[in-house]
Order: sequence, then structure tokens, then C-alpha cells
Amino acid sequence: MAEHPKITTYREKLASARQLKPRYTTLSGIEKEPIYLPEDPGEAYLERQGLPGEYPFTRGPYTNMYRGRLWTMRMFAGFGTPEDTNQRFKYLLKSGQTGLSTAFDMPTLMGYDPDHAMSLGEVGKEGVSVSNIDDMHRLFDGIPLDEVTTSMTINATAIIALSAYAAVAQERGIPLAQLGGTTQNDILKEYIAQKEWISPPKPAMKLVQDTMEFCARHMPRWHPISISGYHIREAGATAVQELAFTLADGIGYAQAGIERGLAVDEFAPRFSYFFDVHNDFFEEIAKLRAARRIWSDVMRNRFHAKDPRSWTLRTHCQTAGVSLTAQQPYNNVVRTSYQAMAAVLGGTQSLHTNSLDETFCLPTAEAAKTALRTQQILAHETGAADVIDPLAGSYYVESLTDRVEEEAREYIRRIDDMGGILAAIEKGFPQMEISESAYSTQRQIESGEQIIVGVNAFVDEDSVSIPTLTIDKTVEEGQRARSIALKKSRDQDKARRALDRIRKGTRDDVNLVPLIIDGLKDRITLGEISDIFREEYGVYTDPAYC
Amino acid sequence: MAEHPKITTYREKLASARQLKPRYTTLSGIEKEPIYLPEDPGEAYLERQGLPGEYPFTRGPYTNMYRGRLWTMRMFAGFGTPEDTNQRFKYLLKSGQTGLSTAFDMPTLMGYDPDHAMSLGEVGKEGVSVSNIDDMHRLFDGIPLDEVTTSMTINATAIIALSAYAAVAQERGIPLAQLGGTTQNDILKEYIAQKEWISPPKPAMKLVQDTMEFCARHMPRWHPISISGYHIREAGATAVQELAFTLADGIGYAQAGIERGLAVDEFAPRFSYFFDVHNDFFEEIAKLRAARRIWSDVMRNRFHAKDPRSWTLRTHCQTAGVSLTAQQPYNNVVRTSYQAMAAVLGGTQSLHTNSLDETFCLPTAEAAKTALRTQQILAHETGAADVIDPLAGSYYVESLTDRVEEEAREYIRRIDDMGGILAAIEKGFPQMEISESAYSTQRQIESGEQIIVGVNAFVDEDSVSIPTLTIDKTVEEGQRARSIALKKSRDQDKARRALDRIRKGTRDDVNLVPLIIDGLKDRITLGEISDIFREEYGVYTDPAYC
Repeated sequence: MAEHPKITTYREKLASARQLKPRYTTLSGIEKEPIYLPEDPGEAYLERQGLPGEYPFTRGPYTNMYRGRLWTMRMFAGFGTPEDTNQRFKYLLKSGQTGLSTAFDMPTLMGYDPDHAMSLGEVGKEGVSVSNIDDMHRLFDGIPLDEVTTSMTINATAIIALSAYAAVAQERGIPLAQLGGTTQNDILKEYIAQKEWISPPKPAMKLVQDTMEFCARHMPRWHPISISGYHIREAGATAVQELAFTLADGIGYAQAGIERGLAVDEFAPRFSYFFDVHNDFFEEIAKLRAARRIWSDVMRNRFHAKDPRSWTLRTHCQTAGVSLTAQQPYNNVVRTSYQAMAAVLGGTQSLHTNSLDETFCLPTAEAAKTALRTQQILAHETGAADVIDPLAGSYYVESLTDRVEEEAREYIRRIDDMGGILAAIEKGFPQMEISESAYSTQRQIESGEQIIVGVNAFVDEDSVSIPTLTIDKTVEEGQRARSIALKKSRDQDKARRALDRIRKGTRDDVNLVPLIIDGLKDRITLGEISDIFREEYGVYTDPAYC
Repeated sequence: MAEHPKITTYREKLASARQLKPRYTTLSGIEKEPIYLPEDPGEAYLERQGLPGEYPFTRGPYTNMYRGRLWTMRMFAGFGTPEDTNQRFKYLLKSGQTGLSTAFDMPTLMGYDPDHAMSLGEVGKEGVSVSNIDDMHRLFDGIPLDEVTTSMTINATAIIALSAYAAVAQERGIPLAQLGGTTQNDILKEYIAQKEWISPPKPAMKLVQDTMEFCARHMPRWHPISISGYHIREAGATAVQELAFTLADGIGYAQAGIERGLAVDEFAPRFSYFFDVHNDFFEEIAKLRAARRIWSDVMRNRFHAKDPRSWTLRTHCQTAGVSLTAQQPYNNVVRTSYQAMAAVLGGTQSLHTNSLDETFCLPTAEAAKTALRTQQILAHETGAADVIDPLAGSYYVESLTDRVEEEAREYIRRIDDMGGILAAIEKGFPQMEISESAYSTQRQIESGEQIIVGVNAFVDEDSVSIPTLTIDKTVEEGQRARSIALKKSRDQDKARRALDRIRKGTRDDVNLVPLIIDGLKDRITLGEISDIFREEYGVYTDPAYC
């Protein structure tokens, strides 16, 4: 029987694609084909599973997947001063990490300088303290910004972090077009789950639009938004809810881009996703496969995107922080190993593996390294990345992919009926669904129906103690002093004019990114810019507490 | 379309089978069917994959697999005195282990009492020292032999260990028919790989026949032989070679049983296997699936077994000791996690997970517990055991299963052509094949083609130190004194007569098991019985060193 022409074309593409190793064999020396297909793949197969790098992307976003390029090993890190985190970045890069990922402290995320009263006791504690361009310089000191890719987990103040990174690059003489990375910048999921916001949804979405537009025009290698299911999941959502609400957020951002006057193919190729990978091994794999299938349909058929890159869901994954236990902490290495494998068998593009000590503290260097080694063993020893979408065809995995897809689509339909994700959030719909799931999980754990090893089964009397990382209080003092010094020593006229331009910008409804970049170069601070947001856009309060 | 009658019958069996949990759902609440099948399973499917618990057993040896009963979590343990190991057994049982597995020291394995010159410096060092019935009593003190199942890793002296276990049971008033467990008793793989033998192959096989016959008649719950690929693999064989040589050994034992005058269905239902599970995730899964398919064909079509239990390959698995590294020892937790999952997705009946410290020493209690927790997380958190043979249908896994099967069958054909496994061993064929594979692996590691994290890539300058277990030298002194005291205090006449009966038994070619059981009750020792073997059967020397 003649081969389907699509398969022939795909095989040609594959043959000319870059391949990392000269040959791929099992440990017994059996050759591993790049991809395995059903015996006679017909239209039904091509419609549902298809080919990697092609609509509907069930089998992965790229033609040759990990044979051409392994996922990015990107360990989320940040604590203390910019110098502390810079040192950790360099330690991780030296240990074989392939991308950077920045955790900011609570004051940075909420838009307060270290010398603000709201920052008391929080500076550098759960992430790195960065409140001005000089902090950002210190954070990336000695790291070639045009070579690494950097992810920044920041939302309400994402526009400031992105601008600061851009400003640092410009002061170093690196063109913006060469900067690769991601700002999380997903404010919708803050209202749904994470609850770290400044302004109400509408002005907040305006800031997101500014970054989308700016990146579309000036930073073609930057992902302005990482549409994040992680925090939705960690707040208690099921895998299906995580998938549905996250894709619904993605639809919300796509609409926002179009409302800003961008063509869908101008911004959608730079959307990226961020999913949690929890314990249920096959469900997580199914979720990632279903995610690609739904998103490609949405982008192609609802938004009429023409560029196949707009149809493609690319994602970072993180193993599930909530699944880790303080009891028997080495068990966390096991959980993280399984979750990491599910992420890879599901076809992730980037991965953070949690450290065994993350229930106690920020990861110590040693624990973070074991977590990174987990990824390296997965990549280089297990052979799990040698064959594209190796579980395709499994009766169970395909069936579960279909079921997860159906159930997520049903949620998306309900959200559409409510008038979209912003309306659904205002109604409290995703929030309520998540809270019901969280409650139900809690009950299952209490009844023992869901077993957590070391917690409600196989409990030890004695506890194991492990080394933990603590943040010295000199960090806060130092960052406060630096922030005060910067505000004293700068050219005050320039700074005042920069702040005025930004305030005017908020009133004139222009894109704020260029104004913030310039302002940061004039040494205005994160806190000062955020104050303008608070004053001009107002402050959001949780409808649950009204 | 009407369902195939075999599928209907299977579904009925499944519906009435025991099920551990009232319901199986994903974390999202999606119901997990016990098994997933192709859309329209026809003859081709039934012939190659079939149904669990049915010929050719590709999808598993039992109807409802882990839904009806989880694999036995069986941690290999043994060191020091019988009391030391007894304490570890109880620790593991208390930690949730579900079966016992005994590691004996070198003198016990080689048939020397602790007071023999050959035992110097080795007593209790790499396993527990057991040289007489009183040691065996102490080893299982307080453990209900009619409730647990016990595996004993012992080969040249397996007949003595089996007899000692039986003798202890009789002295405690437990009928032999109630004893469940396994003696490794696989002498063929000693000649192939492990090299711990006493006598030449022919008399050694005679002792194996004695145990097969005795168990067939008196110990219906005992597995007299565990046909072991583990040591073949650890010596450097590939997965395919491990599979082929182990099944060839199985064929050898089946022939030996028939030569003894047993009907195949009298002994074959109590054969069990023991495989290694190494790094290559999918190849290991494929290996276990292929193993069941080949063995069922061999037993049904070559040996004309009629009892489906004779066709069924049941197996214990152990994660790969050789894959562990002294460098970065916590990486071993990761490797073991992946290997354990492969064993379970491959359908093992029993599993030992290596401890992270096994490259340094015997496992500490803490490290063994983390290894056991790995199995518990796998069983209770990942959902990997909820669906029968969840990878069935995967284009890759099915293709790899076929390839591994083909290549193993080709080896078995070559061994048949040589006149069977004993002839092949005498020619040094499996030994040579393994040594070539070991050499080739070594070269691949040296060239960096095969990456071992922490060894030839991602190397750390500093080394991590972990707690290790050391055996106090008082162990040897104590065991030696006890052995001497026992030989002094016993009824010497009775002992002499017992030894004479055994010697006469070797000359008259009768089944030695009853004679050894009686002799052990008369306090003769392992060393004394082994001396008779050495004198009457001769001592084997490695042909490689002739």
C-alpha cells in the first residue's frame, strides 16, 4: 500500500532535521527509529494524532522533538541579594543547567522597594530582591544575556521586570532582538488562583497588551507571556481544570492581543505555556498531549491563525510542589523523578524539577543539583527522550488523552458561554471549581482513599532532618540601604521627568514599555512605577473578601 | 460488531475477580478501566498481545494484575548474625514490605561453616551467616513462616538452605505444604556469570532435580528455582542476552525435571524468574513482555504443558545494581525510581529496589527504607499500577517487544543447535557473548557515547559522603564460636549417622532433600554436607582458567 503523502513529506523533513547523536540504540543495540507509527496510518490517525510538528500536534510541537534538541533544563532559583542569586545561577549553569529561571521576592512581585514599610521582613526571603536597574545588572553579572535564555516568574510587575532586563541589555550594548526568554506575566491566573495582583483585571490586562505589542515589534525571541496552569493546579485544581482554565486564559490573552490591534500571527507564535506535572503519571502525559490538540484547534479554527507556529503549544513544566512532603524528604526525589518523566513523555519544552527540600525552605545548592541531575539522568540514561512521543498508540494513553480533552473542552465551552475568562473570573467560576476540587482532595486524603506515602500511610515515628537554606537578615538591611542610596544619588530632575512621563502614559493609554525602559535607565525604581499603577489604575481587592 | 467471544469471557472473569480498591480514577476523577483494548480486537491482536492471564501472556500473567494484588515488595537483606538480619527483616516488615528476601554471606553460599579456614574475614560480611538449623531458627525468630513468603538467594548450597527452612518449620510444627517462597537455586547461571559453584554442572543439576521433585511432592507453595537473569545482566549481558540465556536456562531446568521423571505440569507451575531492570526504560518493559510471550510458547509448544500455569512466566525483578554510581549517590534514588517503574509497567510480580548506598556497602536501614518507599510511591501515588499493561498498543513498545523477542529467539535457536544450554556453557558460548557485550559497553562509556551522569558527564569536583553500614568483627568471632559449640554439644552418634546417610544417598542417587532435613535436625552443618558434595561429586574449576 502506498504511504500517505503527508507521511512521506514528514519523513523527508525528519531526514534533513538536525539530530544530536549519530545513532540511537537501546542498550541491547537495537536501533531506535525516531518515530513509530501505526501499520497503515490513514486519515483518522492523521486527524487525531498526526505527526510531530504538524497540526494537531498531539505527538509534539517539533518535527524531531528531543532528537533535535533536548528540553531546556531550567531550575527556578532566586533568594537574597542579586549577588546571592547570581552565584546560584552560575552554580547551576556550571552543573549543566541549560536555561535560567528567576524567582523574585514578595516585595518585587507586589511592587514595593526594599525600603518600603510593606517590604519589612520579606526582602530576599522567597526570591531575589530586584527593585531597580542596578539590581538587575548585579543579578546577571557575568552572564551573557545574548546566549542564555532567562525566564522571570513575575506577574503584576512583569512589565517592569521585562523593561529592566531590556534596559540592562541596552546598557551593555546587546540588541533587544537578541534577548531570549520569558516573562510569566500571566495576570489572569493571579485572579483565579495565586492572588498576587496590584490593579484590577482591566488595567492589568492593558499592561499585558503593552508587553505583547512591544515584544511583537522589538523582541522577537522573547515570550511575553507564559500562560500558567501551575498555580491553578497548586491551588487545588484537577489536571482537567488546570488544562481548561489555562487554555481559557490563553484565549483571553489572544483576544487581548487582537483588541490591541495586533494580528494573531504577530503574537501567537511567542505565546508559551507553563503546566504543573503532578503524581498521576498517565494523566499528566495525556494532559500535555490534549493541551496541544485543543490549542492548535483554537488558534487555527477560532482565531484563524495561519502561521503553524501560532497553532503550536510550547510549554515549560514544573513538577508538583504540592505533592512534596515534609515527612521523609528523600521520598520527594522519587516523586519528582516520576513527574519529570511524565513531563518528558508528554513532550515538554522546558522543565524545572523541584528540590527535595522545597517544603522546608528555598532549595539548597546541593538539593537543587540533585533535582537537576534527575533531568540529566532522564535525558541521558533512561532513553526516554530518544523516540518521539513513545506512548502514542497505547490504548490507555490515547483513550485518556481523548477523555481529558473532552472534559477540558466542556469547561472551555462553559467559560465561553459566560462571556469569556474575564467574565468567568468576575463570577468567581474558576475560583469556585478549584476550591471544590481542593476540598474533595483533602477529604480523600483524610479518608485514606488517596494515599500519600509518609503522611497518611507508611508513616515513620522518627523524623529525618536535612540541611536547609536560611536568609541572613543582613540581606534586607543591605538591599534597603542600596535602594535608599540609589534614590539619593540619581539625577533627581531626570527621575522626576521619567516618572511624570509614565504617569502621563497611563492617562494617554500609550504603550508604557519604552517609557519604563527609559525611566529605569534614569534610576527610577520598581516601587515608584508601581505606585503610579496603584494611583492611576486603582488597587484590586479580592471579591471573596468584599 | 459482535465482540470476540474470548474478550467476552475475559470480561466476565475480570468482573468476578478480586479488586483491591472500590474504584480507580485519575486525580481528575476520570474512571480508569481495568484494561484498554484496541477498537476492534481481532485474531491478530489476540495472537500477539492477547489478554492478561491468557496465552501468550504479553499483557501479564494474571487476569486483573495489580488491581487484584500488588507486586510483592521484597527487599533483599542480610548481614551479620542471624539476629542482625532478623532485626532488619522486622524493620522492613514494619515499614510495609510484603515479602522477605535473604542475602547469605559468602561462606554460606560456598558451603563452609564459620569456623572453616575458607570463611576467614567473610563471615556475615556480604550477607547473613547461616550454617545450621539453629542459625535458621534465629534468622526467622518471631516471623510466622506460614504467613510470609521468603526468598533465599542461594545456589550451590540451595538444597541445604531449603532443607533448613523446611526443618525449622517442622520443628515449629508448621506443615511444609504451608511454606511459601523461593530458593534461587539456579546453578546454570553460576556457570554462565556469577561463578559461585561447588560441583560440576551434572551433579549440581542432580541436586536441583532433587529440590524440584521434593517441592512438587511436598511443598506446593514453594518455587524451587528462580531462574535468574539478574547476574547474567550484571556481568555485562545486554537485555536481549539476559532474556535469551535465562530462558535457555529455564528450558534446561524443564528438561532436567522431565529427565527426573516428573510431568511438566507437576513442576512448571512453580518455576519463577528473576530479571534485572536496567536503565533503558522501554527496552526493559519490552523485555518483560517478550519474556512472557516466548516462555508460554516454549512451555506449550515445545514441552506440551497443558496447565496454563505452566505457560505463565512469573517474575521477581531487581533494579540494576551495576547502574548505580559511587559518585553523587542521591542520583541512585532517581535511577532506581525509573527502573522500578519499568519493572511495574512490564508486569513484574515482585520487586527489590536497590538502596542508594549499595555501591558502598550493605544497605543501611534508612537507605533501604527510602528504596522501599520508592515502591510504595509507585504503587500508591503514581497510578502506574491501576491499569493493566498500560503501554499496550504503543507503536514503539509493541515494536520493541517484537524486536527483543526476535533477537532472543535467535539466541535460543543457536543454543538449541549446540545441544542445549549445558553444552553451550561447556563451549563457553554465553560466557563469551556476555564478555563481548561488557567490553563494548565499557568502550561506549569511555568514549562518552554512553553517558553516566556524575561519572563521564556532569562530574562534581567535591564528593558527597553518606552514612554506611559496617559489620563488626565480633560477628565472625561469635558465629565461629557458635558453630564450634553446636558441633561439640550435639549427639555425635546421631550426627555421624546422618552424614553417612547423606553420603550413601549421593552414591545411591536418591533424593537428598529428606536426608538433609533429617540431618539438619540432628545438628549436622552446612559445611559438613557441602564437604560430602565436594568429596562425592568433585569440585568444578572454571574452564577459562584451565
